[in-house]
Amino acid sequence: MSFKVIDFIECKKLGREHNPQQTSEFVKSLVRGEVLDYQISAWLMAVCLKGMSLNEITALTKAMAESGMMFVLSEFENNADKHSTGGVGDKTTLIVAPLVSAAGVTVIKFSGRSLDFTGGTLDKLESIPGFRTDLKPEEIIKQARKIGCVIAGASSDMVPADKILYALRDATCTVDSVPLIASSVMSKKIAGGAKNIVLDVKFGDGAFICNFNDALELARIMVSIANNLGRNARAVLSSMDAPLGKSVGNALEVMEAIDALKGNYADDLMELSLILASEMVSLARGDSDISSIKKELEILLKTGKALEKFEAMIKEQGGDARVIDDYGILPHASFRFSFNASMMGFVRKIKAREMGNLVRKLGGGRFKKDDVINPSVGLSFFKKPGDKVSEGDRIVDVHYNKANEKDIIESTLMSAIEIGETKPERVELVREII
Amino acid sequence: MSFKVIDFIECKKLGREHNPQQTSEFVKSLVRGEVLDYQISAWLMAVCLKGMSLNEITALTKAMAESGMMFVLSEFENNADKHSTGGVGDKTTLIVAPLVSAAGVTVIKFSGRSLDFTGGTLDKLESIPGFRTDLKPEEIIKQARKIGCVIAGASSDMVPADKILYALRDATCTVDSVPLIASSVMSKKIAGGAKNIVLDVKFGDGAFICNFNDALELARIMVSIANNLGRNARAVLSSMDAPLGKSVGNALEVMEAIDALKGNYADDLMELSLILASEMVSLARGDSDISSIKKELEILLKTGKALEKFEAMIKEQGGDARVIDDYGILPHASFRFSFNASMMGFVRKIKAREMGNLVRKLGGGRFKKDDVINPSVGLSFFKKPGDKVSEGDRIVDVHYNKANEKDIIESTLMSAIEIGETKPERVELVREII
Repeated sequence: MSFKVIDFIECKKLGREHNPQQTSEFVKSLVRGEVLDYQISAWLMAVCLKGMSLNEITALTKAMAESGMMFVLSEFENNADKHSTGGVGDKTTLIVAPLVSAAGVTVIKFSGRSLDFTGGTLDKLESIPGFRTDLKPEEIIKQARKIGCVIAGASSDMVPADKILYALRDATCTVDSVPLIASSVMSKKIAGGAKNIVLDVKFGDGAFICNFNDALELARIMVSIANNLGRNARAVLSSMDAPLGKSVGNALEVMEAIDALKGNYADDLMELSLILASEMVSLARGDSDISSIKKELEILLKTGKALEKFEAMIKEQGGDARVIDDYGILPHASFRFSFNASMMGFVRKIKAREMGNLVRKLGGGRFKKDDVINPSVGLSFFKKPGDKVSEGDRIVDVHYNKANEKDIIESTLMSAIEIGETKPERVELVREII
Repeated sequence: MSFKVIDFIECKKLGREHNPQQTSEFVKSLVRGEVLDYQISAWLMAVCLKGMSLNEITALTKAMAESGMMFVLSEFENNADKHSTGGVGDKTTLIVAPLVSAAGVTVIKFSGRSLDFTGGTLDKLESIPGFRTDLKPEEIIKQARKIGCVIAGASSDMVPADKILYALRDATCTVDSVPLIASSVMSKKIAGGAKNIVLDVKFGDGAFICNFNDALELARIMVSIANNLGRNARAVLSSMDAPLGKSVGNALEVMEAIDALKGNYADDLMELSLILASEMVSLARGDSDISSIKKELEILLKTGKALEKFEAMIKEQGGDARVIDDYGILPHASFRFSFNASMMGFVRKIKAREMGNLVRKLGGGRFKKDDVINPSVGLSFFKKPGDKVSEGDRIVDVHYNKANEKDIIESTLMSAIEIGETKPERVELVREII
């Protein structure tokens, strides 16, 4: 029985289920370059419009994970990984990875780069002079053995099938498909070898998935895929309406993360970091006593153990560890603009997507794949939604490099930050954990 | 407002209607080469799965027709064209075009080539030595003025948008979509300048559309598109279960058509030809008295006027007109195999699709675009469905060129020709005219 891609496309077009054998053959053909781009995109659109069952998505994820090099981490008995579906100002990985590692759980985290209006952990870490994220597999394993904490980019020979599909989705309007998102995320986690996976699935205006129920569906499917493929997983559904923490922008977020590890943190950032970290430790240890774990993690923060781990990781990955005490070695922007409250009242909204897009426009993110980012630009918040302000109070500082960008900064902030007379309802940061 | 193809794809993906402006921009971008193949195919799949309204299909057809050179035939006050959705043994064009022209209606017909298991008028005519179908626009007009009858291939600069879409549909499983079929067919008729269009929409096992209701839907849409774009149109819904007439194969069908113009014809072939021709004349003259027109056409056949017109057309297009009296100048196959009835009874079925595929395998059709066809091969029938046969009666002769093809011929015919004890129900050839 030879595989025919046209039959595979027709099967999905008719709304029928792919069997795992066909799916595996399709993915193999993809990686061998035997499927034409326009055939792939016709199939992607059929998947968008006809959907996939959990069994199909699991088979697709498995086939994609197996399409390239896979990590086997059985020597690290309890290892954990986390993944976020993408947010604005979300530097939790920089806190969670060293914190969980300080608790004795090996963290080998494959991270990504900024995408659209969201930030990326690799870009943030690379604002530390010398920091390398392009580690070889043997370097990753060696570092994991030595200090139990690694954050690296996926190497080019991991999940090649995902690279092929991903490259076509933007231009063909097939990004927002649960089966395609779930298989893309989970194939990378599976190939990365993680035994325990915590997923931060974001919803709200500043997330790729705005609607809570859609995010919940995606979370359930990703957890089920992990379980079907022999991994433990939990998903945290977190709100992404306002930027997380006090800053947006690569170097600024590194500073904020180090500050947080020193005990100087925004409540929302630390709340989410502790939830994610404790779920990772809970899964890795098979211990469901989350509140004890959380207390243990708080002690590791207070005693500086998490910060030590972060410092050790920076050193191992070639970074200048003086950054821990001297933010001056991070890149700084040429200009700073303070945006102040125009009236007395309450900050009602700081729109996360608009803030992310602003930083992207200032050079902190990418519009094309090859764009070089500028790590120095970004936003530092002095007020958050719900905070009371007097007229003239400083709400946010914008760090930028081109003098002529001031107009766009000002108009963006005017429309993205709402001040009103009444205090907004408090939004729960974490709505559900499954 | 600049056109963005990604928004255009998304619009259809969400099941929304394209506005005519967007559709026109899309088609212009297509022809300028600004839309990537994989974006086109994602859109094609979305159209397959979400459909299009009549207004959308009309706008698409118009934009496609206008994407290249358009014929303006206003000097030929009453001109007519016909189109068939594709059949087996269908040589009606070779009879209808000269017949309608003999009745004083200018026929400028743009024909196609064999596709899949169906035959193509251009391939049939080219079996006449010297016959040219690649006429230049000025040659077409000149010949129309001189003799009122032209059958030619569409030039490469007509409807370039269709060529782009068509080339992708086979490999992306997006062939069987009513909006895509209708716009492809009608854009070529519109660009060809026809004022009056008769569509032969076939249904049954030997047609691309098997189901009558699907064919009816397609027919209604194509007639409506024509009307919306200022053309008169009718559609004839004809059954395609058995091959039409007495032969399948290029040179054999030319002989059969000449025989028919001489008065020696199979009833089904002449029935359909007269219906199509009289509808064309009726539209062109604005005369609804079909039965009088039919009588007039019958006289033009009997008096040899239609045959004269066919001969004149062959001469004008460079063909060897001796073919009218000497079939010996047509290519002949090396071998002939007679398939006889294995029992007494009635011919119950001669499966059209299988017959078309057999001729294609013998070299009379194409599997790849560049295949060179062999005009000599084909089938000559001595019995038709419903005919009574005795054991040993000759049912069909197969004309073939490779001695080793005999086995496949025999096994195909055994399974495709059914003989039974009872007479099959008569199938009406034309079910409906709209």
